Amino acid sequence: VNKNGTTLSESATPPPGGLFDGVLARGEVRGILADAGWLQAMLDAEAALCRAQVDAGLFPAAYADAIAAECRAERFDPAVIGADAVSSGNPVIPLVRALTANVRRAHGERPAGWVHHGATSQDISDTAAMLLSRRALLVIAAELTACAERCAALARQHQHTVLAGRTLLQQALPTTFGLKAAGWGHALDEVAGEVRRVAAGLPAQLGGAAGTLASLGDHGLSVLAAYAARLGLPEPLLPWHSHRLPVLRTAGVCGLAGAVAGKVAGDVVLLAQTEVGEVHDGAPARGGSSTLPHKQNPVAAVGVLAATGQIPGLLASLHAAAGHEHERAAGSWQAEWAPLQALLVATGSAASWLRDCLDTLEVDVDRMRTNLELTHGLLLAERIATHLTPSLGRLAAHDLVEAAARTAIATGRDLFDVVVADRQIGALLDAATLRRLLDPAGYLGSAPRLVERALQHHEENR
Amino acid sequence: VNKNGTTLSESATPPPGGLFDGVLARGEVRGILADAGWLQAMLDAEAALCRAQVDAGLFPAAYADAIAAECRAERFDPAVIGADAVSSGNPVIPLVRALTANVRRAHGERPAGWVHHGATSQDISDTAAMLLSRRALLVIAAELTACAERCAALARQHQHTVLAGRTLLQQALPTTFGLKAAGWGHALDEVAGEVRRVAAGLPAQLGGAAGTLASLGDHGLSVLAAYAARLGLPEPLLPWHSHRLPVLRTAGVCGLAGAVAGKVAGDVVLLAQTEVGEVHDGAPARGGSSTLPHKQNPVAAVGVLAATGQIPGLLASLHAAAGHEHERAAGSWQAEWAPLQALLVATGSAASWLRDCLDTLEVDVDRMRTNLELTHGLLLAERIATHLTPSLGRLAAHDLVEAAARTAIATGRDLFDVVVADRQIGALLDAATLRRLLDPAGYLGSAPRLVERALQHHEENR
Amino acid sequence: VNKNGTTLSESATPPPGGLFDGVLARGEVRGILADAGWLQAMLDAEAALCRAQVDAGLFPAAYADAIAAECRAERFDPAVIGADAVSSGNPVIPLVRALTANVRRAHGERPAGWVHHGATSQDISDTAAMLLSRRALLVIAAELTACAERCAALARQHQHTVLAGRTLLQQALPTTFGLKAAGWGHALDEVAGEVRRVAAGLPAQLGGAAGTLASLGDHGLSVLAAYAARLGLPEPLLPWHSHRLPVLRTAGVCGLAGAVAGKVAGDVVLLAQTEVGEVHDGAPARGGSSTLPHKQNPVAAVGVLAATGQIPGLLASLHAAAGHEHERAAGSWQAEWAPLQALLVATGSAASWLRDCLDTLEVDVDRMRTNLELTHGLLLAERIATHLTPSLGRLAAHDLVEAAARTAIATGRDLFDVVVADRQIGALLDAATLRRLLDPAGYLGSAPRLVERALQHHEENR
Amino acid sequence: VNKNGTTLSESATPPPGGLFDGVLARGEVRGILADAGWLQAMLDAEAALCRAQVDAGLFPAAYADAIAAECRAERFDPAVIGADAVSSGNPVIPLVRALTANVRRAHGERPAGWVHHGATSQDISDTAAMLLSRRALLVIAAELTACAERCAALARQHQHTVLAGRTLLQQALPTTFGLKAAGWGHALDEVAGEVRRVAAGLPAQLGGAAGTLASLGDHGLSVLAAYAARLGLPEPLLPWHSHRLPVLRTAGVCGLAGAVAGKVAGDVVLLAQTEVGEVHDGAPARGGSSTLPHKQNPVAAVGVLAATGQIPGLLASLHAAAGHEHERAAGSWQAEWAPLQALLVATGSAASWLRDCLDTLEVDVDRMRTNLELTHGLLLAERIATHLTPSLGRLAAHDLVEAAARTAIATGRDLFDVVVADRQIGALLDAATLRRLLDPAGYLGSAPRLVERALQHHEENR
Repeated sequence: VNKNGTTLSESATPPPGGLFDGVLARGEVRGILADAGWLQAMLDAEAALCRAQVDAGLFPAAYADAIAAECRAERFDPAVIGADAVSSGNPVIPLVRALTANVRRAHGERPAGWVHHGATSQDISDTAAMLLSRRALLVIAAELTACAERCAALARQHQHTVLAGRTLLQQALPTTFGLKAAGWGHALDEVAGEVRRVAAGLPAQLGGAAGTLASLGDHGLSVLAAYAARLGLPEPLLPWHSHRLPVLRTAGVCGLAGAVAGKVAGDVVLLAQTEVGEVHDGAPARGGSSTLPHKQNPVAAVGVLAATGQIPGLLASLHAAAGHEHERAAGSWQAEWAPLQALLVATGSAASWLRDCLDTLEVDVDRMRTNLELTHGLLLAERIATHLTPSLGRLAAHDLVEAAARTAIATGRDLFDVVVADRQIGALLDAATLRRLLDPAGYLGSAPRLVERALQHHEENR
Repeated sequence: VNKNGTTLSESATPPPGGLFDGVLARGEVRGILADAGWLQAMLDAEAALCRAQVDAGLFPAAYADAIAAECRAERFDPAVIGADAVSSGNPVIPLVRALTANVRRAHGERPAGWVHHGATSQDISDTAAMLLSRRALLVIAAELTACAERCAALARQHQHTVLAGRTLLQQALPTTFGLKAAGWGHALDEVAGEVRRVAAGLPAQLGGAAGTLASLGDHGLSVLAAYAARLGLPEPLLPWHSHRLPVLRTAGVCGLAGAVAGKVAGDVVLLAQTEVGEVHDGAPARGGSSTLPHKQNPVAAVGVLAATGQIPGLLASLHAAAGHEHERAAGSWQAEWAPLQALLVATGSAASWLRDCLDTLEVDVDRMRTNLELTHGLLLAERIATHLTPSLGRLAAHDLVEAAARTAIATGRDLFDVVVADRQIGALLDAATLRRLLDPAGYLGSAPRLVERALQHHEENR
Repeated sequence: VNKNGTTLSESATPPPGGLFDGVLARGEVRGILADAGWLQAMLDAEAALCRAQVDAGLFPAAYADAIAAECRAERFDPAVIGADAVSSGNPVIPLVRALTANVRRAHGERPAGWVHHGATSQDISDTAAMLLSRRALLVIAAELTACAERCAALARQHQHTVLAGRTLLQQALPTTFGLKAAGWGHALDEVAGEVRRVAAGLPAQLGGAAGTLASLGDHGLSVLAAYAARLGLPEPLLPWHSHRLPVLRTAGVCGLAGAVAGKVAGDVVLLAQTEVGEVHDGAPARGGSSTLPHKQNPVAAVGVLAATGQIPGLLASLHAAAGHEHERAAGSWQAEWAPLQALLVATGSAASWLRDCLDTLEVDVDRMRTNLELTHGLLLAERIATHLTPSLGRLAAHDLVEAAARTAIATGRDLFDVVVADRQIGALLDAATLRRLLDPAGYLGSAPRLVERALQHHEENR
Repeated sequence: VNKNGTTLSESATPPPGGLFDGVLARGEVRGILADAGWLQAMLDAEAALCRAQVDAGLFPAAYADAIAAECRAERFDPAVIGADAVSSGNPVIPLVRALTANVRRAHGERPAGWVHHGATSQDISDTAAMLLSRRALLVIAAELTACAERCAALARQHQHTVLAGRTLLQQALPTTFGLKAAGWGHALDEVAGEVRRVAAGLPAQLGGAAGTLASLGDHGLSVLAAYAARLGLPEPLLPWHSHRLPVLRTAGVCGLAGAVAGKVAGDVVLLAQTEVGEVHDGAPARGGSSTLPHKQNPVAAVGVLAATGQIPGLLASLHAAAGHEHERAAGSWQAEWAPLQALLVATGSAASWLRDCLDTLEVDVDRMRTNLELTHGLLLAERIATHLTPSLGRLAAHDLVEAAARTAIATGRDLFDVVVADRQIGALLDAATLRRLLDPAGYLGSAPRLVERALQHHEENR
């Protein structure tokens, strides 16, 4: 039961998903944004509007009670409302008409006469969008935080697990899986925080037909304040019918969430390649192929990418639709509805799949070690160059070791052998030192300390 | 009944629409792309695959009959299939499993053993996508052609209706409403043609797990040819699992259709402004507001823009997802599903709303004439300058008339009065000639002939 | 002179613009992001790196002095560096090579040996990008704030200037130009604040080849801290080579700025239409046409839209490029360079044109009043309905007045006459009351108070 | 020397590139679209316009000779023209003013008076855009065709080179490098053809201020025809100032080209991974790192991706700008300039890098063979299942082999050993047959024949 005396449909069973929803709309967000959720949120806005007018002394509380009693989504058929919307261009108009009829039937003319008073369709629809966006963003933030927790655990566990750092998809230097996981986790934490901040700031909408609250006479501002308070949404300084910052901020954090989720999933897919094999999707009975009996596809990570691949375009759609004309727009407002929902669903799906991906991720420490040896020492080339820098200068050392590395690659020999045999380098470096320099675990730089400080920051900002 | 002996669900009643579908998913495309349509198209592909293998002599026709008999969408629950898709990452795998079980139950092990033989999930899903895209594109093309017909009628009717040509939203020169409508119509015709060409070229997909048709042994190419023929789709030269040109071409013509529809609707919305008033949405009982009793909103044109505003972003999503890795992608393929459907639905909705918009468009010829007089002759300033060009040179004439125009604006006088009083121009131009020059209907250049040739081209290319 | 002892090129004369830069790259941002700016920012990063290593005790200050002395952009040819970048894929590698040669030539081997020590190309390039982005964002924020100031002045001046509020480009209700300007100004203030917050948070980048700072041994974290401090940039918790939140946040606020600027400019273009004429671009000698002597195009507002039209796509490009693989990306990093620059330039151009647009905006109060009368009273239809609501209920009142409005439109009569003659309404409403209700200035609702609170908020948050 | 008697600047030395152009603007397109190219193309349009009016008998040929003689880009300073464009919003107006002055100075008032007669700025700018786009597209098509040739050579050479087919980045089945290269080549051929078709259809633009050719009186259509003929561009049926199909078609084929180039480059980057190593960037002295002496980065493929990553967003920008208002747009036209150029440059750069990438590509056939053995037989699991299908049915066979595969993975044993030991499968399959089934070269399906038909198609369509 919410402040309006109506029951929010938050816990309602979501409608059955469609053919593609299992893959593309994982998690709770689809249910939040289902038609029943929209209807209830619109009705919550109508109920709050009535109560706010009672608060402002416009009519007796009994009228608002009567109206609020009818503000229940299950009493309206979204297919009928949706079809009736054709003649007006938005679903609020037929909803208000149906709601008024219901109130009249059950409670008489008097309360029916005050339904929707003071509001324009967009007030109701925008407020509903904010209620649902907030709910969806909080679900997304919770998923991202759960992902970050899992990354923190991986970072702690693998603080000293050495693997090849890769740049331009080439092995470059040793790093630790702990640092990789800490990088994922820190980005996830950051974005989760931004998602929550945006969710908390999403405002109510109430301006009447042209943003002046004209039909509320002198009561406009007090009704606005009470309306927002009743809904638990921040009160806007001004109506924002044609200034879409709340929508764009919602889109913006979805964009950030998608970017981070996609980065992590991309790394997982690459690490899970047959030829790399450093992580696996560990979920039992998942990842099979319709035709290949041996496949162990990284399904969860692919699920993330299936969602995040849609996000930049949807973000662009919402930005392209931001130029709302004058007091309320001719098309741009309606052009927001589908992309905003698709964006929230995709972001929620990405976050949910990522959580699954990280929860079931199996790390193959042995394979990481084996892969470090693939280049027969080349991975430590920089270290040798760095060791020679005090004697030769950075660039000369770099060029000398580069030449040795190219020889090693061309001849298939170990870097150790080539370097030992090199007159110039050999003069500066004995075999024992070289052997020590070629140990990957000895060339991790600040990786362990970076992990430490990332974990500490994570703990402190929970 | 199609070639596979199965009944295509083309004429099935589309499922009830959702809360936003009346506005955002007008027309037939939503129904075509509903889950039942997808299921049937996937099953049509499975049926065609079996029959193609019979054609190639792989197994008896009775097996294919048995399988095809089960390939009926209404025997599968999309919600169940969709939910089962979570463990494999696409809905074809659980569909094949369910189909195999049904065939086994009804017809025994033998035919059941050949279900989906030779194919990979993506073969079925891509083929279904092409079947449905073709169907949707043909609907879109028909709507666009109907719009073009209506524009041709408007162009014919208004070949000599003068209105202000507007550039940078300023009145610039007289033009005719016929030319405006001919411009709309020609663009619509062009795009309708391109939509049809792309639809006709959408190929079947069959490559097996890695595009080699390996499990079909020596029969790969003959099965591929028979499969495509059975489906009535062009046979691809090579499997295109990770080369997405057919998807991008579909997206591309949707982009063109959206661009043209949006252009026309944008013009209508601008012409319908209260202060312009040259066209109206003439549909009875439409365009009301929830709170403003007098509003006559251009609902249909707004419906077009609600759809077209989504298209550029969706187009970008499909292009961003085009880099499919190796033989089949890890995420990019799944990332296509939602944008492709959203794009087709939005384009279909735009085309359908546009047809409605044009069908009900009322043209206010009087208002066009009145608006021509708003600038007290400035609209013909270029004509005066052109008239003076032989005497003064183009630039000098331009600058002189520009000065007169600025005087007219600053002082609120008619351009006639200012020009007549101007010593330099007055010497070159008598009042009667000036009066003649200031008649908008006399300064239409090639407008009527351009309309004629556009109409002739339209007729010849029907 | 900055902390590194090098002179920043901030005040350098920007290079001459190209053919399209006058229109598309107005303001200071183009100059900030010119090649000279990039070179100097990269060299500032190299200088800061050396000094940071001195701070950490790695080598004598004299070496850093020697290196920093060579870190001057004018000593390098961007065309040569750019061409040499072909073989390595980024311009930092040839720049480091050229810088090292210069240091060696002027100061000998010793300091030359420490150039770029500890860093990877991306450390330098990302740091330079952050330095330049911060500078560009601060310019943009200043322009937006100047725009907001101008809007505040307009809002104050026109707090009681009545004009038609327009929804779906139809006149809807009276509002005030003050409220319109306050809405613009508040959105501009909000975004300017967000731009500044993002600018202040853009971090330095230093991680070495794989983000472990390996070649700095035990000194990694102290060098990182000193490096960031030297540059005046926040120190990142972790290297962010493949976590692109700083780039995406920069893009995000550009997106918001573009959205708001585009909204305001869109309103101006619409208000400046010949048929509306409520504002004009007041800049003398601007807005002419190459062929139309009388044109007064709203050039500045069009300049805004020319820029903002590019922004959503560029934002999408940066988000699509966010999936950087592993420790450093194969392509996505390089794919950021052009869109990031284009985005900052476009946003800067939009902000600069908008400032010009608002500075020269002329408001035609008389035309606003005239336009209010275009609908012969229909604009107050809601007010009559609201007045009748206590007697009839909201919906019945709405429907009754809607019918009257339709009659007025169909017959071309004033709403006053129709309503007075209406039996049902006439019974509830005398002519004097009706006359009063039809005064637009009496139906402004909370508009003046909304302006007041917006101005107060603006003052308090300067 | 072109038809106008002016020298086209096609062969002029392109201006020096900037800091990022070596990486981001490779190839000829940058030079084509440089300011000098734009100026010359605009001047070519002005010259053609004069000659066309001579053709139509409007004025003596000597005037056109005089004007055309001044139509040389090197006589104008793009920086000055660009700066002057601020007051009018486009560079054509100051260019026409400067050209007129030059003609007057050199040839007197008479010819000067006819400069730009009949045209509007957008006629000149759009025509120039089409001239340059055509030139750029033909360069791009040539590069793509060269890439396709190289792919055909690779396909021929490697028709029987076996490597692992990979789906979802997991080894799936054997395929041939020939088929992979044939797939690349066929897509490149297809797109090259579409690029050429679009290039050939790009029309001239001439409509005068409002698209009516009004200032040309009765000569409008004949001037239009002569103008297009003089420029060698198709004549449009109608002026297309606000119908942007030619721009969108240009964008569309750039999108397709980018998609294909990005796909190929993506495959190369993945194949070049240290852990895969099946191809290498074979360019000597390329791919070094600023800090890692051993790196052999796939620079050319990364160069492709740096370009293609920008394309979807730019495509969206052009589509979002397609809604040009009325006869000529307020902002959308100007919003095209930067994205169109950026798109052509990026596409040209992608095509040029790809050619380089393919030209220097080294294929490591041994590593391909080695990688096939990584899964100890799992790659042939489907084949075993297919072999068992006649006995067991497809699904039962699939499930049985899947179980064996999972055992092999879990225990680290060869699939051969597990299968031989499996009671159910062992009964149906002797060791010799199994050994034969596990030979990758024996399970290539139609791969060689697909290569053959692709090569034949390539030959026939050269």
